[in-house]
Amino acid sequence: MTVEGAESEQKQATEEKTSKKAAKKAAKAKEKAEKKAAKNEKTADDSVIDDCSRGKYGNMEMIRSTMKPDRIMTSIRTLNEAVKGARVWCRGRLHTSRAKGKQCFFVLRQQFCTIQCLVAVSDEISKAMVKFVSDITKESIIDVEGVVVAVENPIESCSQKDVELHVKQIFVVNAAEPRLPLQIEDAARPENVGGDEDDKLTIRVNQDTRLDNRVLDLRTPTSQAIFRIEAGVCDLFRNALKKRGFVEIHTPKIISAASEGGANVFEVSYFKGSAYLAQSPQLYKQMAIAADFDRVYTVGAVFRAEDSNTHRHLCEFVGLDLEMAFNYHYHEVLEVIGDMFVDIFKGLQTLYQEEIETVCKQFPVEKFKFLEPSLRLEYPEAVALLREAGVEMDDEDDLSTANEKLLGKIIKEKYDTDFYILDKFPLKVRPFYTMPDPKNEKYSNSYDMFMRGEEILSDLTKIKAYIDSFRYGVAPHAGGGIGLERVTMLFLGLDNIRKTSLFPRDPRRLTP
Amino acid sequence: MTVEGAESEQKQATEEKTSKKAAKKAAKAKEKAEKKAAKNEKTADDSVIDDCSRGKYGNMEMIRSTMKPDRIMTSIRTLNEAVKGARVWCRGRLHTSRAKGKQCFFVLRQQFCTIQCLVAVSDEISKAMVKFVSDITKESIIDVEGVVVAVENPIESCSQKDVELHVKQIFVVNAAEPRLPLQIEDAARPENVGGDEDDKLTIRVNQDTRLDNRVLDLRTPTSQAIFRIEAGVCDLFRNALKKRGFVEIHTPKIISAASEGGANVFEVSYFKGSAYLAQSPQLYKQMAIAADFDRVYTVGAVFRAEDSNTHRHLCEFVGLDLEMAFNYHYHEVLEVIGDMFVDIFKGLQTLYQEEIETVCKQFPVEKFKFLEPSLRLEYPEAVALLREAGVEMDDEDDLSTANEKLLGKIIKEKYDTDFYILDKFPLKVRPFYTMPDPKNEKYSNSYDMFMRGEEILSDLTKIKAYIDSFRYGVAPHAGGGIGLERVTMLFLGLDNIRKTSLFPRDPRRLTP
Repeated sequence: MTVEGAESEQKQATEEKTSKKAAKKAAKAKEKAEKKAAKNEKTADDSVIDDCSRGKYGNMEMIRSTMKPDRIMTSIRTLNEAVKGARVWCRGRLHTSRAKGKQCFFVLRQQFCTIQCLVAVSDEISKAMVKFVSDITKESIIDVEGVVVAVENPIESCSQKDVELHVKQIFVVNAAEPRLPLQIEDAARPENVGGDEDDKLTIRVNQDTRLDNRVLDLRTPTSQAIFRIEAGVCDLFRNALKKRGFVEIHTPKIISAASEGGANVFEVSYFKGSAYLAQSPQLYKQMAIAADFDRVYTVGAVFRAEDSNTHRHLCEFVGLDLEMAFNYHYHEVLEVIGDMFVDIFKGLQTLYQEEIETVCKQFPVEKFKFLEPSLRLEYPEAVALLREAGVEMDDEDDLSTANEKLLGKIIKEKYDTDFYILDKFPLKVRPFYTMPDPKNEKYSNSYDMFMRGEEILSDLTKIKAYIDSFRYGVAPHAGGGIGLERVTMLFLGLDNIRKTSLFPRDPRRLTP
Repeated sequence: MTVEGAESEQKQATEEKTSKKAAKKAAKAKEKAEKKAAKNEKTADDSVIDDCSRGKYGNMEMIRSTMKPDRIMTSIRTLNEAVKGARVWCRGRLHTSRAKGKQCFFVLRQQFCTIQCLVAVSDEISKAMVKFVSDITKESIIDVEGVVVAVENPIESCSQKDVELHVKQIFVVNAAEPRLPLQIEDAARPENVGGDEDDKLTIRVNQDTRLDNRVLDLRTPTSQAIFRIEAGVCDLFRNALKKRGFVEIHTPKIISAASEGGANVFEVSYFKGSAYLAQSPQLYKQMAIAADFDRVYTVGAVFRAEDSNTHRHLCEFVGLDLEMAFNYHYHEVLEVIGDMFVDIFKGLQTLYQEEIETVCKQFPVEKFKFLEPSLRLEYPEAVALLREAGVEMDDEDDLSTANEKLLGKIIKEKYDTDFYILDKFPLKVRPFYTMPDPKNEKYSNSYDMFMRGEEILSDLTKIKAYIDSFRYGVAPHAGGGIGLERVTMLFLGLDNIRKTSLFPRDPRRLTP
């Protein structure tokens, strides 16, 4: 393994002491140390001879792991009025800066958190230093030492509203190029607002520009929050199943036979032959049941060579799949899946409240509602609800995407839930091998689940090769597969699945 | 979602009451209910008119979810002397059976656990019923009702040694074909023993037969244990990193550019163009760092089109990868990875003791040893150790596989650890972009980790396209990638990585 990065030639800075008595002594010693350090530090402008800030700013040499300073880096999140007066070091990005005569305001950013910093000409701070700071390019990584100072009027544009940092030292760890293909502020601007109060500009960054420059787009508070929430969905899915006795498995992505007769499947060259990318772990989950694992789940890449350019299709996504043996009735499985979703939704709203609010600031949406236990409707009930709403459809007609959406709205109004299970699909709209409902041969023992009116369980593969495994005995079983990106998108009420895929793949996009 | 399976036509059996007073009443009522149920039950041989067991055995109709009996299925694991006298229902597989005159012994299996069952001709049990039981094919799924009876001599061949089940009712839920391509007992036989005490036979099942019939091979206690341990590795990896502030991400498997100039990479047809399968998530992990996620990990499929047919190479495996920004020194990262491994090893030995012992019964090996904190050696120290042992090598020579193994042994003897970190590899054996050690230009700031003398960190990809992400500022960072199957194999001291891959893929194997 190789280290990518850079290293400071700076001498170790002494850690900040909290004791006030010791503070002055320490300050003197520190100053001395820093002056010494300055000799080894490249300053921005060596020609300025009487620069009183010499050694307190500049570009760091590349970090090459020669030193292990015990300097403590402070998290911006912890800076507030309670620590006013403290002198701290922070590493972050220069988010924005604004030079104004003899001073320069800039915002330092760490993921979600931002703090206003001020560097102003004084006995300690030279003109050259202020000039250096105002020339630092946006998105550069910088180390800042400053004193936490309370402000009179809350700084509304920053996450830390009650304090700012008065800069004592500042070094550029890694500079960004001066011309960015998109501005983080533009990419982070709320979608609903007509214009900012400050500048009346309404620059929006379109989806393709965002995705072409994904690394920048991912730096917005919304993106930072979305992928933390998505990690949460994954974690909560696993925990919900682990506590119910499921075992995690990993299924192969390269398979020998194309499911669905080769439609919508990616072909792979495999040594002298060819193979395919799995469209679902279905076959392998079921083989795991035949192999006595009883209850299994798997999280992994799933591939669909569908040429559909919609807001909700990807060519590669993360499948969250489960399968379990049951004793007598597939409702044993439906209950587990329903309860699992309740665990996920509850967990998200408990553990990721801040992240959800962050996303909502940019893309406002109603809070996701669900019932406990989950609502389960049978297909004829859904048809009846749609008919009441004026939709003309036969008992066994399939649900169009529009009717799915409408049904979602009706159910939200009637039951106050954004999540429900639809059971007993008509046999004629399901694949040929679906188990008929023995009590009513027009319907089947099959189900689907919906979030905000969109289907979230992915279809079964139609391959039947796994029948072989069944020759040696298998318990009755059922399960489901959901798309991680789709669940995250619908939970957050986002308009496009590309927002919830770190590096999305669709028929037109294979990079970055 | 569709239900695969079958359903009982049996009437609901009443749950066993613990109260002894109620027991007799219940028994009578039950008998009545069962007689009624018998009318609806298919018996094995309808022509036997005076079959006193009629309705108490037979082949179940396919389970089609018409009933939800409240019958409680008991786990074999819970059956011991403490519950003797209890009447229980168990669903499991017929592991083996032996008919002897008027009685038939069989073993019922649930994953790791087995119990001996006896059905013998009596007032309640007909000859026809015993005959029916002795004809049930091995590996069939059966429902058994029986009374727990203590035995005088421990049953050494079963996991439940102190009790057996005296069968009252038995139904075949799903029958296996009579001819199995391999016998579970053969596949489960210990590798070290010359022959069984009982039968002196030493049938072994070779690797290919196992893999061709993976679903059967996976039913052995060893396979059941291995994949539970592997799930544990995954879980412990995630927990170790989550608690250290890492965020889980998912990286694309389909990529536009082949890393390493197209060598060892699988090509995929992608709509009208072509693409490749990612050999590692390296590029995307680093982009996530450039995108400010600070500390990330990912668990997912990794593809290597290497035509190597060794005990430790797969064409598709599960990569456990992490990457983190550090402040000044890559040893910050080494410490995190070392501590993470300690968490994993400790967790396995604490939470999976039973599974580890199960594997050890079939494949005996010394317990895995590790130090806390992990042992870190620098390359020159390793070379010195090898030289002491008589190996002739230069300071900057690469480690051969044989020398890696030998070094593992030397270190085990000297430090009593099966895990160590090797730091500061010679620059000339590492890729061109490796960071040189500024203190000694012959060496590099790069490292590797070893378990039982085998390397476990996978190589970096050599692609440099991600340089682009670095144009917009990135903190110094480092990380590593380990193969899930390899770590599990080496922890358990197994001889082949195919034993730790659920459905392995190598140059010659693409099925099942």
